[in-house]
Amino acid sequence: MVRNSFGNIFVLTTFGESHGVAIGGVIDGMPAGIEIDFDFIQNELKRRRPGQSKITTSRSEPDKVEFFSGVFEGKSTGAPIGFAVYNTDQHSKDYDNMRALFRPSHADFTYYKKYGERDYRGGGRSSARVTIARCVGGALAKLVLRKLHIDIKAYTSQVGSIILENDYYKYDLNTIEDNIVRCPDQRKATEMAELIEQVKNEGDTIGGVVSCVIKGCPVGLGEPEFGKLHAQLGAAMLSINAAKGFEYGMGFAGVGKRGSEQNDVFYSQKGNISTVTNHSGGVQGGISNGQDIFFRVAFKPVATLLMPQETVDEHGDATSFHAHGRHDPCVLPRAVPIVEAMAAMVVLDNYLLNLTIKV
Amino acid sequence: MVRNSFGNIFVLTTFGESHGVAIGGVIDGMPAGIEIDFDFIQNELKRRRPGQSKITTSRSEPDKVEFFSGVFEGKSTGAPIGFAVYNTDQHSKDYDNMRALFRPSHADFTYYKKYGERDYRGGGRSSARVTIARCVGGALAKLVLRKLHIDIKAYTSQVGSIILENDYYKYDLNTIEDNIVRCPDQRKATEMAELIEQVKNEGDTIGGVVSCVIKGCPVGLGEPEFGKLHAQLGAAMLSINAAKGFEYGMGFAGVGKRGSEQNDVFYSQKGNISTVTNHSGGVQGGISNGQDIFFRVAFKPVATLLMPQETVDEHGDATSFHAHGRHDPCVLPRAVPIVEAMAAMVVLDNYLLNLTIKV
Amino acid sequence: MVRNSFGNIFVLTTFGESHGVAIGGVIDGMPAGIEIDFDFIQNELKRRRPGQSKITTSRSEPDKVEFFSGVFEGKSTGAPIGFAVYNTDQHSKDYDNMRALFRPSHADFTYYKKYGERDYRGGGRSSARVTIARCVGGALAKLVLRKLHIDIKAYTSQVGSIILENDYYKYDLNTIEDNIVRCPDQRKATEMAELIEQVKNEGDTIGGVVSCVIKGCPVGLGEPEFGKLHAQLGAAMLSINAAKGFEYGMGFAGVGKRGSEQNDVFYSQKGNISTVTNHSGGVQGGISNGQDIFFRVAFKPVATLLMPQETVDEHGDATSFHAHGRHDPCVLPRAVPIVEAMAAMVVLDNYLLNLTIKV
Amino acid sequence: MVRNSFGNIFVLTTFGESHGVAIGGVIDGMPAGIEIDFDFIQNELKRRRPGQSKITTSRSEPDKVEFFSGVFEGKSTGAPIGFAVYNTDQHSKDYDNMRALFRPSHADFTYYKKYGERDYRGGGRSSARVTIARCVGGALAKLVLRKLHIDIKAYTSQVGSIILENDYYKYDLNTIEDNIVRCPDQRKATEMAELIEQVKNEGDTIGGVVSCVIKGCPVGLGEPEFGKLHAQLGAAMLSINAAKGFEYGMGFAGVGKRGSEQNDVFYSQKGNISTVTNHSGGVQGGISNGQDIFFRVAFKPVATLLMPQETVDEHGDATSFHAHGRHDPCVLPRAVPIVEAMAAMVVLDNYLLNLTIKV
Repeated sequence: MVRNSFGNIFVLTTFGESHGVAIGGVIDGMPAGIEIDFDFIQNELKRRRPGQSKITTSRSEPDKVEFFSGVFEGKSTGAPIGFAVYNTDQHSKDYDNMRALFRPSHADFTYYKKYGERDYRGGGRSSARVTIARCVGGALAKLVLRKLHIDIKAYTSQVGSIILENDYYKYDLNTIEDNIVRCPDQRKATEMAELIEQVKNEGDTIGGVVSCVIKGCPVGLGEPEFGKLHAQLGAAMLSINAAKGFEYGMGFAGVGKRGSEQNDVFYSQKGNISTVTNHSGGVQGGISNGQDIFFRVAFKPVATLLMPQETVDEHGDATSFHAHGRHDPCVLPRAVPIVEAMAAMVVLDNYLLNLTIKV
Repeated sequence: MVRNSFGNIFVLTTFGESHGVAIGGVIDGMPAGIEIDFDFIQNELKRRRPGQSKITTSRSEPDKVEFFSGVFEGKSTGAPIGFAVYNTDQHSKDYDNMRALFRPSHADFTYYKKYGERDYRGGGRSSARVTIARCVGGALAKLVLRKLHIDIKAYTSQVGSIILENDYYKYDLNTIEDNIVRCPDQRKATEMAELIEQVKNEGDTIGGVVSCVIKGCPVGLGEPEFGKLHAQLGAAMLSINAAKGFEYGMGFAGVGKRGSEQNDVFYSQKGNISTVTNHSGGVQGGISNGQDIFFRVAFKPVATLLMPQETVDEHGDATSFHAHGRHDPCVLPRAVPIVEAMAAMVVLDNYLLNLTIKV
Repeated sequence: MVRNSFGNIFVLTTFGESHGVAIGGVIDGMPAGIEIDFDFIQNELKRRRPGQSKITTSRSEPDKVEFFSGVFEGKSTGAPIGFAVYNTDQHSKDYDNMRALFRPSHADFTYYKKYGERDYRGGGRSSARVTIARCVGGALAKLVLRKLHIDIKAYTSQVGSIILENDYYKYDLNTIEDNIVRCPDQRKATEMAELIEQVKNEGDTIGGVVSCVIKGCPVGLGEPEFGKLHAQLGAAMLSINAAKGFEYGMGFAGVGKRGSEQNDVFYSQKGNISTVTNHSGGVQGGISNGQDIFFRVAFKPVATLLMPQETVDEHGDATSFHAHGRHDPCVLPRAVPIVEAMAAMVVLDNYLLNLTIKV
Repeated sequence: MVRNSFGNIFVLTTFGESHGVAIGGVIDGMPAGIEIDFDFIQNELKRRRPGQSKITTSRSEPDKVEFFSGVFEGKSTGAPIGFAVYNTDQHSKDYDNMRALFRPSHADFTYYKKYGERDYRGGGRSSARVTIARCVGGALAKLVLRKLHIDIKAYTSQVGSIILENDYYKYDLNTIEDNIVRCPDQRKATEMAELIEQVKNEGDTIGGVVSCVIKGCPVGLGEPEFGKLHAQLGAAMLSINAAKGFEYGMGFAGVGKRGSEQNDVFYSQKGNISTVTNHSGGVQGGISNGQDIFFRVAFKPVATLLMPQETVDEHGDATSFHAHGRHDPCVLPRAVPIVEAMAAMVVLDNYLLNLTIKV
């Protein structure tokens, strides 16, 4: 059921609201016998954490994850892994004036109409804070992928109109964490950070693009028809807060090309079949072909502005409001680890499912 | 399980290969008591049919659907609806020379590696011919949506570098079927058709974009977290053969904007809450907000070229081949009804699921 | 979704009504590279076929299965396998007098109230005829299990008050097909057949029990919590028409015992850990322990009697009717292959799922 | 996926081990706007709690449930409800001598073989302690069912050879909580309690039967084919620890009857169609018919004996052991609320699913 669960074999189910008691979830289908590196997991959460730099929200949360089950003597047992991260720095009062109004381009209106009830504090269930649970799931998936020599790297490739012009393989993706924007081009990163600060000072927000590369993925992951690998990746990425678009391989840029320009010609080297180009982005017919998988995710500017905005309240009466909460002026830096987490879960899930193809 | 089934409540399961006996499927969860308009369904298949114009493949298939169950005295009974469309015009010999080689940018290589077996004739399971089953599912979904006053219209908005510059609401979407490209701008449609013909004459192929608009969707469809409406639509669209990208609302174009430019301000008219602009594309927080839903899907150029290409065979030995089958030079015209079909199933599925929110 | 699909990895989706065009389905998740023995499959259908003996319904159906997809050059390809069995000997007129009334202990009333529509001819979707699709799914599963040396045998162990008193291992289960009741005790089989004939002559019906044994199942199949192997087997068996109860191992008879009498003590022989007794029925903690799995399924007497019965019609008015269709006086002989088919699918599904536990 | 999740629309996912940090879960699909009666929930847990009487284990756990999400201002919001119950009274040392051996008729051996890892303390994931999460899910389901006037009552109807001879409607089911066995016949209850005490004093254990009645269930719940209401109930009940059998309506006792004795004749009273008898147990064709639903669940004697037992260790070497932990001599009294909880979730899930049948 496509609600708060994700995956087929490796399944993450999440719970939690921005100002509730805790964010957490259950991971079902974690392979048994995997050493659980708790420092690694906590570090993944740190990458997503608020308050990590001057260009992210100042909400201060340790985001310490507590595991309830599924790990014994340092290893996964095959039992479901329950976990929670307590909310400790809610300023719910900041939202008192939003109790009865609908913030523009937020989920306030749609949740209210859908459920009849809503937790208005900090966006409730629609808050990006709930992605904590995805990062825990992704971190566990990465622990398995590490064993399988599959590596996932995402990075900020665009903020506003500042764009990385080169393909991913022109950059050293190990330098992504060297700046607060998570961009492998240090000069552009500085420009991006400056733009974000400027936008923040104006009380405004700005969008951008996260690019992602998956290396070492074996041939054969993904399912025909509805479970094409890129369709699963697309669904995963589009489910991230503020995502507005997804493309893989040549994506939208390829539509203006001819087939003779786009096709990836096969060749063989030492018995290993590869392609000369990789316009396909590592996926052909919905199934990984052993080349690098790459894709891009568009994120809109954050909807919460620190300036006055017009709107209506639950009765439809016109009103205005001025947000004073703590908010990100740009989701990009913190979206990077979430993109990686979702990609890790998709790849692992398909890896496990693929084990059932032959007996 | 994300293999050959699609949906949560209204579930389509499909089977069939390009040169097998038949393409078909089962629709489970069709609401009971719906009048089944067989002419309408057959007409939807006609829109997808090969050989419908000079710019589509010349494979000649009547694509007559046979229903096996689930309909009694002209109405759906709530029982699963089984159906099949027989393949009648396979030229499997055309593929004899492809038995042991991997066509570039096709699924030949990935299927072979994944399954160890493959039906090489006409692409087998990876052929776009299997989308017949989606069109049947979509047609049935549309019959229900018609009752609910929800209308879905897709159209070709780009072929190669020929682009419709205006937003969807500037066009009369009832004129889409007036030309063979399925484009609401008749002048551009002529240009597009000419380009496709030219590309075809060169033995080459070309890509493009399908745009889609959903009108009349009530507020509240879509689920939080992983089942966001646009994430489901994205997965559906990306699962269509040759799809390379998906965006909704402002999509990739919106990433360069500020929040103050992007936010959709609410207003109320006669008790009905609406938005002044619709940059959100009808979806906020993953849930429909009552505005028009719109999105765009990028399709790459078809991989099959009618010109010589280099590749390798199953042993990794270099070889070349020259396809002589019957192929589309551009998927766009025939992709339009498939986009609509997938959208219809997603919307109906979410409509039904939403009925379970309150007791 | 628990409607017309069954299984997690090996998934059977079925369609069809007793007097519709055809019964059929789709099998998704069939492992690739399995040789498809069509004669074996057809023979499994023959075991379920009506008109096979004097103690079964005289409806005459060849029940010839047509495969649409998923098999190429005699082997499964990993693509979904679509299939159908056409109905050829419907006597729908026999049901004209039942159009508006509710037969006692049938699904007429419940379907009518649930769906508002119903196909009253021959029970429609609720007919035992739809189990054809299960037998096809089971036959394909058996082809895989054969490779894995897992063997499933069901047999009639009770008809009315005629009961096999010994445990399964006292009988030669290879003799089950030697009589029309499918009972390994040839003398009891004769008594059972005589009882069924007598009941039939009275226009009445009779119930019984099918027992089933699974040999060669490896240790480790089944999932903790909700997917316990016996819970899955129970759900599968209880979903068969007319099933009223399920028990495994000592079942209901064990509730009167002490733990010290019931526990199965482990011992080791040549490095192989086994149990001295098998009161657990081959399943411990919901997971197979390598011993024979055995269970029993209770079937009620068929609801259709060839004698006058009182009832009400759709308006609630009292009426009476006298069925003249062709019906089984006892489901047991034909239930045996269905029990096997369901068991085969459950075991294969769990075998495949179990492949994902370790990487 | 049939692992640690249960249900289709109302989905409970659980985690936790007997001696881990906590037992808990996530409930997805709780209808919005339901008042959450925390006292009621806690009381349901109290009915399952260890140490509640002299005939249950003396492990002392407050079993206080903490809710993390999905409830706001006392009502469900439609968001997933995360919860946990901390383990506070583990005596893990009691299990040190069981680290490397397999207790007879426990899950020690099967888990070890399946996962390669196991949490041997107190049974780990296979412990009945994990049913806490089921009781929380069931309590929430009951809150919704209360609004729908659907009532579920389970009771102990057999312990060892002490059996309630009358049908459920001969007893006052409101007196179930009046004794520690949860039996509506106070005299038999005393006998049962005495038997359990005697067995306990011998270091042995004993089995029994729980009966359950569902009143007020509307016509139409349950799905055809694989989702028959009784098949779902059966799977739910068989997934409870120590369950060995399930029957509904006449169950196994009905197999010896004739159809003419078993059929439930319809009659109409004041426009309401009912049946004269209820041998069907409230379910016909897999769908509720508006009559009382009733079923019985067989539970084996607990496998843990407080006497010496022979077994083998992980190396297959013979060994013996003597359990000294705190254990129930009979699961029946504490199984009653678990049976109710599972039934409540099945009924609510089907109620919600049934809302999608008609538009």
